Amino acid sequence: MKSLILPAVTAATLGLSFQPALADEAGEAAMAARHGEMSLMAHALGILGGMAKGQVEYEKIKAEAAAETLYVVSSIDQHLLWPEGSEAGALDGSRAKAEIWTNMDDFTAKWNSLHTATEAMKTAAGESQQAIGAAMGAVGGACSACHKAYRTPAS
Amino acid sequence: MKSLILPAVTAATLGLSFQPALADEAGEAAMAARHGEMSLMAHALGILGGMAKGQVEYEKIKAEAAAETLYVVSSIDQHLLWPEGSEAGALDGSRAKAEIWTNMDDFTAKWNSLHTATEAMKTAAGESQQAIGAAMGAVGGACSACHKAYRTPAS
Repeated sequence: MKSLILPAVTAATLGLSFQPALADEAGEAAMAARHGEMSLMAHALGILGGMAKGQVEYEKIKAEAAAETLYVVSSIDQHLLWPEGSEAGALDGSRAKAEIWTNMDDFTAKWNSLHTATEAMKTAAGESQQAIGAAMGAVGGACSACHKAYRTPAS
Repeated sequence: MKSLILPAVTAATLGLSFQPALADEAGEAAMAARHGEMSLMAHALGILGGMAKGQVEYEKIKAEAAAETLYVVSSIDQHLLWPEGSEAGALDGSRAKAEIWTNMDDFTAKWNSLHTATEAMKTAAGESQQAIGAAMGAVGGACSACHKAYRTPAS
């Protein structure tokens, strides 16, 4: 057994709670991370969607930052985020269908197609309100394709 | 007034809720995005911390994916995420101190120093359990420096 000194790295000093030892807690943390991705993207999409619809003034710098966020978040490697036992029914708060685990290749492909759509959004964001609107179709399509296949309806 | 057609891009089809029109909702969405960043990093830190402490077996691929997540999340441009009026006291659930807005340069520098620390973690993650432990000090230090200065205590 190794005894490793980790100065200043405790939950208290980080101000974070991480408890990897228990499977349940690992599943909860993974689900929270998944939901975190969704919250980050919902916020960025809200800004871009508001600009596209003319509810929010188009500002190049803001649009580019929002698009970059979509691009960066959709680049996150998903393989740590979907531990077995973190599906709807097994874990409170999860809306992940069990089909994710039986179709992991398709699930991953759908995630990657979102990343591709955000690349086009990055370009559009630097151009104009109209370009953002045009790019939104592919981003929204990628979101809904995955949600439709792999997320249970909201209760 | 422009009327822009956005096929398939509604909250319903995306399965997301974004309502950029109202300031309160924009603040809520920004806070959720901030908390999303924290959840993503807490999960990744849990995996790396567990490995460093020997509670979880060191696996190079997992360690690298977790470190990459830290690196990617800490690269997210923060300037959209901290709208005025989203501080503790003004917005339910926020623990953001008002000092963030009066010290935005320092706040941003602290965020960037986290990103720098995660770069070293990326290298360490490919090496060994011991290297991860050594890199954790700087990452933890960056987390706690910002939390100490800019986050209210947990209630």
